[in-house]
Amino acid sequence: MELASKSVTGKIGGNVTLKKIVIMVLMALAGYPALAQKPTPQAPAQVAQQVRDYRIANEDRIIRELTEFLAIPNVASDTPNIQKNAAHLVEMLEARGIETHLLPITGRGPVVFGKLTSPEAKRTVIFYAHYDGQPVDPAAWTDGRPFEPALRDAAIEAGGKRIPFPENSAQHGAIYNDDWRIYARSSSDDKSPIVALLAALDALREKKIPLSVNLKVILEGEEEAGSTNLQHTLELHKNLLGGDLLITGDGPVHQSGRPLVFFGNRGDIGLDITVYGAVRALHSGHYGNWAPNPAMELSRLLASMKDADGRVLIDGYYDDVTPLGELEKKALAQMPQNDADLERELGIAKPEGGGKKLVELLTQPSLNIRGLRSAYVGEQAQNVVPDRAEASLDARLVMGEDPQKKFEQIAAFIRKQGYLVIDREPTMEERRSHALIAKVINEGGYRASRTHMDLPVSKALVEVVQGAAGGNTVIAPGLGGSVPMYIFEDLGLPWIGVPIVNYDNHQHSSDENLRLGNLWRGMEIYGVILADLNW
Amino acid sequence: MELASKSVTGKIGGNVTLKKIVIMVLMALAGYPALAQKPTPQAPAQVAQQVRDYRIANEDRIIRELTEFLAIPNVASDTPNIQKNAAHLVEMLEARGIETHLLPITGRGPVVFGKLTSPEAKRTVIFYAHYDGQPVDPAAWTDGRPFEPALRDAAIEAGGKRIPFPENSAQHGAIYNDDWRIYARSSSDDKSPIVALLAALDALREKKIPLSVNLKVILEGEEEAGSTNLQHTLELHKNLLGGDLLITGDGPVHQSGRPLVFFGNRGDIGLDITVYGAVRALHSGHYGNWAPNPAMELSRLLASMKDADGRVLIDGYYDDVTPLGELEKKALAQMPQNDADLERELGIAKPEGGGKKLVELLTQPSLNIRGLRSAYVGEQAQNVVPDRAEASLDARLVMGEDPQKKFEQIAAFIRKQGYLVIDREPTMEERRSHALIAKVINEGGYRASRTHMDLPVSKALVEVVQGAAGGNTVIAPGLGGSVPMYIFEDLGLPWIGVPIVNYDNHQHSSDENLRLGNLWRGMEIYGVILADLNW
Repeated sequence: MELASKSVTGKIGGNVTLKKIVIMVLMALAGYPALAQKPTPQAPAQVAQQVRDYRIANEDRIIRELTEFLAIPNVASDTPNIQKNAAHLVEMLEARGIETHLLPITGRGPVVFGKLTSPEAKRTVIFYAHYDGQPVDPAAWTDGRPFEPALRDAAIEAGGKRIPFPENSAQHGAIYNDDWRIYARSSSDDKSPIVALLAALDALREKKIPLSVNLKVILEGEEEAGSTNLQHTLELHKNLLGGDLLITGDGPVHQSGRPLVFFGNRGDIGLDITVYGAVRALHSGHYGNWAPNPAMELSRLLASMKDADGRVLIDGYYDDVTPLGELEKKALAQMPQNDADLERELGIAKPEGGGKKLVELLTQPSLNIRGLRSAYVGEQAQNVVPDRAEASLDARLVMGEDPQKKFEQIAAFIRKQGYLVIDREPTMEERRSHALIAKVINEGGYRASRTHMDLPVSKALVEVVQGAAGGNTVIAPGLGGSVPMYIFEDLGLPWIGVPIVNYDNHQHSSDENLRLGNLWRGMEIYGVILADLNW
Repeated sequence: MELASKSVTGKIGGNVTLKKIVIMVLMALAGYPALAQKPTPQAPAQVAQQVRDYRIANEDRIIRELTEFLAIPNVASDTPNIQKNAAHLVEMLEARGIETHLLPITGRGPVVFGKLTSPEAKRTVIFYAHYDGQPVDPAAWTDGRPFEPALRDAAIEAGGKRIPFPENSAQHGAIYNDDWRIYARSSSDDKSPIVALLAALDALREKKIPLSVNLKVILEGEEEAGSTNLQHTLELHKNLLGGDLLITGDGPVHQSGRPLVFFGNRGDIGLDITVYGAVRALHSGHYGNWAPNPAMELSRLLASMKDADGRVLIDGYYDDVTPLGELEKKALAQMPQNDADLERELGIAKPEGGGKKLVELLTQPSLNIRGLRSAYVGEQAQNVVPDRAEASLDARLVMGEDPQKKFEQIAAFIRKQGYLVIDREPTMEERRSHALIAKVINEGGYRASRTHMDLPVSKALVEVVQGAAGGNTVIAPGLGGSVPMYIFEDLGLPWIGVPIVNYDNHQHSSDENLRLGNLWRGMEIYGVILADLNW
């Protein structure tokens, strides 16, 4: 709280802001020695150690930069604040000598584009992250204030207590315990990868370690609102985007806590199904047993979509799946098997999937009920036969699958169950002539994306990350989640995911948090990539 | 609107309140001639005609008494206003010379008890109605003001326009069209039966028609809140309740528009089922296909409870049903068959019940989903595997069925589907060891009730109502809905339902309304019962 309130005003001690301090430090460092001196590259483990040394001496400054950033509310639709985030980012980037451009989007936060050239580098790496966050319901947060970063000595679930941010520690080394956590919206998703990257740059600069690659950054301001304008905006500014690899910092590391590199993700479509009873809710006494109950019809429809093992029964649902290659299969087999731990932690006695492992299941298309609604339950329940029942579904897509075709398969299945499928409210004539009517709304979505694991860049990246993290990195052919990486694929860029934050970060929910040890390790990994990646 | 605003202040013309007018009229009538003169009873049709004559000359006064009453908000939990309703009722009853007692209930409106003795009568009829109404959501009402009665020249669904209440019409006869409607909370359910009864008494008094029975009234103030205190309150005052028949005025007439007499109703129980997924909602990308989905499990469970024709598949569900007697079967066969009209009006292509008629189905136990809820749908949908899914159910009970046993049959069925059934949140250990867990909350309820159709009182009542209404009354062995008539059965009172209001009155919902022709006919029926019932 102490530091958090300081963060909002950006003051340290007297009236010197953090930004000014950063600029003063950089001016004192007097330019980037790498650009002039061409020293021998250092091995990943050495670079990691030097980044660590820098971090230990500068924890206070790094945390201060993070908490100042987190104190700016960042819901994509909150235009004034999302613009403030973008302006703040420009200051953060320019303080590092990164040439910055704002790629504007009407009514939203711009794409913040940055570029830092290293004359000796032959390759260019583009770093992608987003600075907007999910909407917040302050009442659902333990501390009630998602934009006032709070420090705790452990996760709330583990009994973590709130503690004050320590005083400036530059003189006496590390003072933040690895297991402490910062609670705030976007503390994990996705502001901390940005801070980790910039702090890694500061470390390399102070330690006079040259960059092995040119760096560009694409920082998006509406990822949590669907990245609606990203593709169009990037196409408009295609000339800026030349590069050899895109790295996304979004997402959590493996549940085992080990670092993660991933080469693909699933696509995603959303749909909303409404089924209908009588034109109005009817008294359940005077009409119950006679009026068709849409909640029951919806239950039947949903129950018919999957078998008891969770296999989808929709015709052709698995037909277009591109099988994994040998390399992906091998990587999958080598991933940690921690299903039992997860089941224990999450209170799951028996997962779906007929005994298959989580990592295997995530390489298959999914069908998931996101929500149900019909009339009222509990204290609010009324004695009615409801007039309608609604379900929201999402389907995750894997390589080979087309979003529109997937939607049509689901719609065709609903038709096959006897439903008239429409995309608007039914007319009275339709109600009188069709016992089963479903309004099925296609919310759209996008396809899966995957980078080959045997590209030279893929192998080179795995090698440096393994070098930075002591060899225990988890290499995943794909993640279960969805990020619109197809956009970069379409721009001709191979992409690879190098997330850094803890998996139990409450992403998208209340009490989002960052485990500090993850931030520190993330800095080291990003530092080593910038110093040693070469192919 | 014009009259409605007058109603609130209770003023007519200058500063004379309605109450004062009623008292003046009654004083002018100088006592109840029936008590002294013993004239020959008139036939029902004649009595009905005299009540009609009185009504035509007094429409303005009757409507004014109704709208003043409707202008007092009457949600059971709104203690100050519900007490105002009771005080107003005392004035209304005492103005007719009815001896009135308030039977208090802490924090609620009292039971208003009244008694009017006719020395020559050998039987006592108790009239039951309730003066509280369902909660209101003003925003859902067309006129936005549920407690400012509005007059329309037809039902809103039929394009009815709002019109001013006519000026005092005592000099020039009927001015209210039968199809006009008054919109207000409790205009139908259940204040108008009370006004109809009192206006019928006024008519008999003016026309010097004696009462054939002693009259008692029980007017309840928390029927819509579950009649929680009714049984206890009546038991405390059992000495007041001696009688030979209870008539309830609650409920609508038959959908055909014809008058209705009913001899039974279904019982009712409510229950709430929650099934569980992981301890927290999980990202549908990272866990979809693996984390058990409680919305899907709930759909399967609900779908397994009934077959495609709507027959309940729960073991023993129909075992305890007491079959209808010959008399009830015959009455059922004689009821109007208007299913096709209802289907057309309600936009239903195919009702539940495998082809059985509505009236038949209402003699069977039902199982109905009142509502569903899991996470969010539509615009609010989040990409999660929900942590829980909830359904609210109600079951209507028929004669022979025990509410507790019914609940246990349903719980046993859920157990048979593999669920651990509990009545609280599951523990972590339970979650880890049981794939299927259902919290099943018994919200309680009460049994069905039925009066034999061949009792002398039953036959006598049907005869006078038929006489009053020209022989087209629908005689129903039972209604599908539930009113706690078992309470009176337990007090040793046979009971019969004689509702008067239109079936399309939007009972319990927004835009509740009364068709005036129903009020007029209701007065005639109640007048004939009071003048001619004898057995």
